[in-house]
Amino acid sequence: MASTLRLLLRPTPTRLHATALRRHASTFGYTQAKALIFSDYGQPSDVLKLHSHSISPVYGSEIVIKFLAAPINPADINQIEGVYPTKPAMTINLGTPTPAAVPGNEGVVEVVSVGANVKDFKPGDRAIMKHTAFGTWRTHALASDKNLLKIPEKFRDLGVVSAATVSVNPCTAYCMLKNFKPLEKGDWFIQNGGNSGVGRAAIQLGRLWGLKSVNVVRKRPEIDALKEELKALGADMVITEEELADRTFRKQMKELTGGKGLQLGLNCVGGKSATELIRHMGEGGHVVTYGAMAKQPLMVSASSLIFKDIHAHGFWVSRWSDANPEAKREMVEEIFGMIQRGEFKDVPVEKTVWNSETKEDVLKAAVAKSGQAYSGKKQVFVFEE
Amino acid sequence: MASTLRLLLRPTPTRLHATALRRHASTFGYTQAKALIFSDYGQPSDVLKLHSHSISPVYGSEIVIKFLAAPINPADINQIEGVYPTKPAMTINLGTPTPAAVPGNEGVVEVVSVGANVKDFKPGDRAIMKHTAFGTWRTHALASDKNLLKIPEKFRDLGVVSAATVSVNPCTAYCMLKNFKPLEKGDWFIQNGGNSGVGRAAIQLGRLWGLKSVNVVRKRPEIDALKEELKALGADMVITEEELADRTFRKQMKELTGGKGLQLGLNCVGGKSATELIRHMGEGGHVVTYGAMAKQPLMVSASSLIFKDIHAHGFWVSRWSDANPEAKREMVEEIFGMIQRGEFKDVPVEKTVWNSETKEDVLKAAVAKSGQAYSGKKQVFVFEE
Repeated sequence: MASTLRLLLRPTPTRLHATALRRHASTFGYTQAKALIFSDYGQPSDVLKLHSHSISPVYGSEIVIKFLAAPINPADINQIEGVYPTKPAMTINLGTPTPAAVPGNEGVVEVVSVGANVKDFKPGDRAIMKHTAFGTWRTHALASDKNLLKIPEKFRDLGVVSAATVSVNPCTAYCMLKNFKPLEKGDWFIQNGGNSGVGRAAIQLGRLWGLKSVNVVRKRPEIDALKEELKALGADMVITEEELADRTFRKQMKELTGGKGLQLGLNCVGGKSATELIRHMGEGGHVVTYGAMAKQPLMVSASSLIFKDIHAHGFWVSRWSDANPEAKREMVEEIFGMIQRGEFKDVPVEKTVWNSETKEDVLKAAVAKSGQAYSGKKQVFVFEE
Repeated sequence: MASTLRLLLRPTPTRLHATALRRHASTFGYTQAKALIFSDYGQPSDVLKLHSHSISPVYGSEIVIKFLAAPINPADINQIEGVYPTKPAMTINLGTPTPAAVPGNEGVVEVVSVGANVKDFKPGDRAIMKHTAFGTWRTHALASDKNLLKIPEKFRDLGVVSAATVSVNPCTAYCMLKNFKPLEKGDWFIQNGGNSGVGRAAIQLGRLWGLKSVNVVRKRPEIDALKEELKALGADMVITEEELADRTFRKQMKELTGGKGLQLGLNCVGGKSATELIRHMGEGGHVVTYGAMAKQPLMVSASSLIFKDIHAHGFWVSRWSDANPEAKREMVEEIFGMIQRGEFKDVPVEKTVWNSETKEDVLKAAVAKSGQAYSGKKQVFVFEE
């Protein structure tokens, strides 16, 4: 909004003399920026382009930010494909011949310069995105204080990857454990996708809050190593889908929960996996869906709903964050504290360095690698000057 | 429980001299009773038997009741079949050679006589069953004040059918409209099974509370007459499943709800019908399942759960009533008031008179006719002396 207004109110470099300006950007106080952009929805490999533009000196309540790190999340890919319910705005503010959007919802930034009317930020401050759909796959951007959630000074030493990846996975896990079925210390929850980013966050938050977790993962050659890895994070039980389906599991769970059964289930798979998960829920249990790896709906029998009093919900961290900015700020700072104290570990990541020399192909390769949603390592752009 | 204790504590007529006693029952203060009973789970036509026994004079805190009316509900049939999660207790208290149970969960009774310790009931009082699974398909029974919910004197003139059928259908509709998604005057809800007992109750309660209803019914030859009938009860819209699936419905609903969409859905069908219903729910809507006519699970897409924030619940009136006896009493009296003021009509019923001469075949024929769950007329036993 702010930058649209700006285009209307005062002279700004247009596409016609953009090249000339870019050449002498620093001379005039202009910031040289690069961004991955797309003008049409489609496969990222087809539609993403690396675009150079310049950002004019800050004015009024504007803030120029430089990105430090930005992850590639499954939702980012879905937005590029045009299959996500929210879409980043297509604008001509970046000087593209046709309206274009910058993908990326999460990221951590450093403030470069602030306009005269900016009160809450100063150059050098760090921040994460306050809302989704800002467009974080870029080196620099023009923002306002409405876009930024400042990172308190005490968390300045936090790794950029931790800061860049807190808003989606850890916050999703946090809200799902807290907002649906109140659990008491010693209560058990169950989740499929135990190895996902959210899954790993839920294991750790559960451990810190005295909750016990059953983590369902897909069978794989290195299953023993994965089980050990998740147990090291605090998982109480890591089982394959086959082990979940086994009769002994139900009996074991009944004993472990003192007859109460599993009261909360987190589901990012759907289809059969979710049916199996619900089959093991205790009376009055709540199942929260946040993903659909199997691309199949949640199926709940009428008897589960009526006689077992099972409740099904969904959780969308974007909607929640946008509706609860203050609660988000508190949650993020709580998680930052856990990370700083060494109580909470990031999901394993693979970094792609992005500097002024980085070619489009390198960036697009990272996007392609992220296709393996909810498994493998999370791809993160780490920006260097 | 009370009657088991009684069997142990004092002499009582046994099966051996039952015939002799029955002949002179009134002489000795014994009550002659008949009950439909079953000793094995199975098809009602195979397992139900009409059994005669006698009830000895009241003692202590006992109450002898005679039934005035008792309906045949789908859950009663499922209990006889042994496919319902709760089962009436099999006992030898009725003097049967093997343990047997009396089916029937709903009914209205008149107090015949009370023991010396009974404070809250006197002969002539009317009551409905406080809990489910009492066994209401019988002419007389031995009860205690714990089994009975007294009907206030001001509702004494209420028809016995109204009193006998308030606990399941109207209470289910009442709770589903009140307990899940708070609706405001003018809000719309949608339900399939619009012609069911619960459906008709929901239409009328909705009308009384200023809510608007979309009622989905199955296509049938006399569809126009049914539409008029439900509209006369207060239905704002009555449509077939085909009309629901039509594109124009969604547009129409969006306009009628001012963009808010349908916020509450009541589902007694499941399968495709429920999927279609959920497809038309507005953001943040809740769907409550209370039946499964299609014998298929509820299917909810991940995007409905996550992005449309749809919540799925079940409602079981038995559990709710047993957990909330005082709230049930208040609700029943509120509905009785509506009936008395002519604001609330019973579901259409077909009565089967049950007196001392009625043969087993006649009673079993009524049970067989009730098989058409959620459609046609509700079968009700009406007792005459």
